[in-house]
Amino acid sequence: MTVSQIDEEVAKLLELKAQLGGDDGKQTFVLKTAKGTRDYNPKQMAIREKVFNTIVSCFKRHGAETIDTPVFELKETLTGKYGEDSKLIYDLKDQGGELLSLRYDLTVPFARYLAMNKITNIKRYHIAKVYRRDNPAMTRGRYREFYQCDFDIAGQYDPMIPDAECLKIVYEILSELDLGDFHIKVNDRRILDGMFAVCGVPDEKFRTICSTVDKLDKMLWEDVKNEMVKEKGLTEEAADQIGEYVSMQGGMDLAERLLHDPKLSQSKQACAGLTDMKQLFSYLQLFQITDKVVFDLSLARGLDYYTGVIYEAVLCQTLQAPTPAPAEQNGAVSGEEGGVSVGSVAGGGRYDGLVGMFDPKGRKVPCVGVSIGIERIFSIMEQKAELSAEKVRTTETQVLVASAQKNLLEERLRLTAELWNAGIKAELLYKKNPKLLTQLQHCEETGIPLVAILGEQELKDGVVKVRNVATREEVRKASQKRGWGNVCSAVEKIL
Amino acid sequence: MTVSQIDEEVAKLLELKAQLGGDDGKQTFVLKTAKGTRDYNPKQMAIREKVFNTIVSCFKRHGAETIDTPVFELKETLTGKYGEDSKLIYDLKDQGGELLSLRYDLTVPFARYLAMNKITNIKRYHIAKVYRRDNPAMTRGRYREFYQCDFDIAGQYDPMIPDAECLKIVYEILSELDLGDFHIKVNDRRILDGMFAVCGVPDEKFRTICSTVDKLDKMLWEDVKNEMVKEKGLTEEAADQIGEYVSMQGGMDLAERLLHDPKLSQSKQACAGLTDMKQLFSYLQLFQITDKVVFDLSLARGLDYYTGVIYEAVLCQTLQAPTPAPAEQNGAVSGEEGGVSVGSVAGGGRYDGLVGMFDPKGRKVPCVGVSIGIERIFSIMEQKAELSAEKVRTTETQVLVASAQKNLLEERLRLTAELWNAGIKAELLYKKNPKLLTQLQHCEETGIPLVAILGEQELKDGVVKVRNVATREEVRKASQKRGWGNVCSAVEKIL
Repeated sequence: MTVSQIDEEVAKLLELKAQLGGDDGKQTFVLKTAKGTRDYNPKQMAIREKVFNTIVSCFKRHGAETIDTPVFELKETLTGKYGEDSKLIYDLKDQGGELLSLRYDLTVPFARYLAMNKITNIKRYHIAKVYRRDNPAMTRGRYREFYQCDFDIAGQYDPMIPDAECLKIVYEILSELDLGDFHIKVNDRRILDGMFAVCGVPDEKFRTICSTVDKLDKMLWEDVKNEMVKEKGLTEEAADQIGEYVSMQGGMDLAERLLHDPKLSQSKQACAGLTDMKQLFSYLQLFQITDKVVFDLSLARGLDYYTGVIYEAVLCQTLQAPTPAPAEQNGAVSGEEGGVSVGSVAGGGRYDGLVGMFDPKGRKVPCVGVSIGIERIFSIMEQKAELSAEKVRTTETQVLVASAQKNLLEERLRLTAELWNAGIKAELLYKKNPKLLTQLQHCEETGIPLVAILGEQELKDGVVKVRNVATREEVRKASQKRGWGNVCSAVEKIL
Repeated sequence: MTVSQIDEEVAKLLELKAQLGGDDGKQTFVLKTAKGTRDYNPKQMAIREKVFNTIVSCFKRHGAETIDTPVFELKETLTGKYGEDSKLIYDLKDQGGELLSLRYDLTVPFARYLAMNKITNIKRYHIAKVYRRDNPAMTRGRYREFYQCDFDIAGQYDPMIPDAECLKIVYEILSELDLGDFHIKVNDRRILDGMFAVCGVPDEKFRTICSTVDKLDKMLWEDVKNEMVKEKGLTEEAADQIGEYVSMQGGMDLAERLLHDPKLSQSKQACAGLTDMKQLFSYLQLFQITDKVVFDLSLARGLDYYTGVIYEAVLCQTLQAPTPAPAEQNGAVSGEEGGVSVGSVAGGGRYDGLVGMFDPKGRKVPCVGVSIGIERIFSIMEQKAELSAEKVRTTETQVLVASAQKNLLEERLRLTAELWNAGIKAELLYKKNPKLLTQLQHCEETGIPLVAILGEQELKDGVVKVRNVATREEVRKASQKRGWGNVCSAVEKIL
């Protein structure tokens, strides 16, 4: 059978299936969102907006532009970029036309954008949702639809300067969000590869052993070693040598020491990585952020496309996070976004080869970037908001236009419109004759600070009362011949 | 054959196909975005941000909260909501698990959200992308992935008050965006249905005749009549009677007159619609927006779910929009988003039945809302930006930290970090020894207003020069023992 014969046959069968009523007969109607996704309610949105504002302000402070790309890409654009994780990509149904997939991250679309537009240098951020058919663990902020906040610097520059800026950005954002103490682990793919080489790992096993090392943040060394030896066929000796290296942590001093390590210094790659690591730390010292940065040889990161420096930020303590259920742990797959290590909230690294994969002539554009794992941060902020006495406001309304008697709807509408026209955030209840109590309750429930109360006597006198809802203080303001200009300015002054 | 046998057979065939290499053999690698979609470059994003800010400010001024929903819904959630347009829905591939579709608009997910959370009143906005497998016409702002900006009021309220606020919002947004003159057509589904009834249209043809009337904004009456009579089997007499009504335009006076129309007043539905129309206009008068609102009996709108007032805002002149090619006209399908009528930029109406479709007990939540057709507005703003002499800045950087001599990278990094820490938007070039000219050119190209220039002599003297890029004015600022606090405050002052 040829491919086109198969296509024909499938089409015939599906038509027949549709005639039989398709899948409809099997289903009963369920009112829910798709597995692994969620709605954001107004309170969650208020928190989300605050977090985004902090992050975007930081990206803008560092001079970044922003771009956006479509939520789906040609399937082939994503093919061969994610290694084993490719199975987690959402495909669209073939409805005639192109084969499409939902984006899995923002990095591959960014590389596609650069190659397509022949851009050789840019500093951009991109905040958007990405999609992974992963095992969701929603209590811990792991979803199938989730936000990534990416900042990347593309261009041929002197070593480690943009890399250092990425770490500075992680430091600034995590400090400003006030999520508690954190540290940033740093390593380099070249150091890892060099280490594998000098420990006697065969070339073709580098990537798979790297994946195993990546599990060290959630598995004991014994189990990691077991996987290397029993599943992946490494010699016990090689595994033990790796075990020694990956237990090392330090700073510039460790990089210096390893440059003179009799074994590791045999590897040109490792030396290049270590020299850059020293350079990186010297810049981090100038940025005064070395207190939070650790050179950690056990950091591997899952994705295939990294070529140099890699890093990951980890919260030191988790704020009342529920303990992961065993089932979730088993199904867990490490990834960009939080992943499994309980406190991972940001990660990234250098990927100098990715853009070249899209360029017809293979022209490379060196890139380095960082992705903030925002869902995990949302979860923490939501928990903080729950615990806090302060009520999260979901609107910004400054004044409610109310009436003390019946038949004042027209006056309420008129004043509300004048407030809107003056740029004041105002509401009224959509009832002809709402009770004053109901109107005041609405203010208290939604946190509206002021209420403008219209009454018949006041209208005759040409005034309106403006009351502070919390203190109950009142000011009487004159209206000018049915115009409320001075009421508007009074409200503005009080606010 | 049964459905499950078919499924089995299809699976076998697809496996065989995959073994044969699937579709890969047929394709050559193309560097592009999916059909009907586009990237936003930094300049387009700067414009988009400006438009969103205007719209969101307006929504917030009117006291709205915001929510977000996932980009895909269970397929069955969307089933039966869009009439003939259902064929334009993107489905996801069945990869095991639930059958999913990309959202087609924000209204149906909103209704699902209300029913699922048993919310009976809310005023919310939602800005997000929606997906339609439509014939794209990208030069005219019609895409397969596009933004909708929706504002809706749900709840049992007194008639026409929330409806009037929706129109006020359209008026405010279109005025603030400064897109040129516009008008807002208003009609009511009940008036249309009453009109069809008294003109002798059989009940079962109401919706299809309504679709034909909806084409009046892009087809001559003769052609519309032809479709009614020849394709849809209406009598010529009925069509002519409809023709008389749909040519009518006016304001409150027209509603009043039609309430006494011997034929139309026979219909209870039409009378209810006309009475509400009068009420609506009285509120619009209080809001002082009747100058732009027209009661137009030819307005029908495509979607099935409307039950009362409907409206659509139209730009009176299009700013150098390319003339639609005939091919596009033929393939065009009218929809929420701009659709075909050249200047349509917003639309909406009342849909009192939609939430009930999701509630297990059919409990209704009356809703009214408006959707701003933002892509069309982006196109116009982009054209305006092209024609304008003013350069669109894509970053907000306030100061570039430059050096006049070699070997000053460390000093540049140190000062830049201090500026960042002081909340100042600062950049440096990622080169060890960039030329001063290159650094100044970067300021001019990207619109950075200030440059802080470090030089050896200045460092010895403990000062730094801050230059205004446009005027070339310079200020020398003292540093305090390698701390740049007063440079920061000087930059702040100059800005």
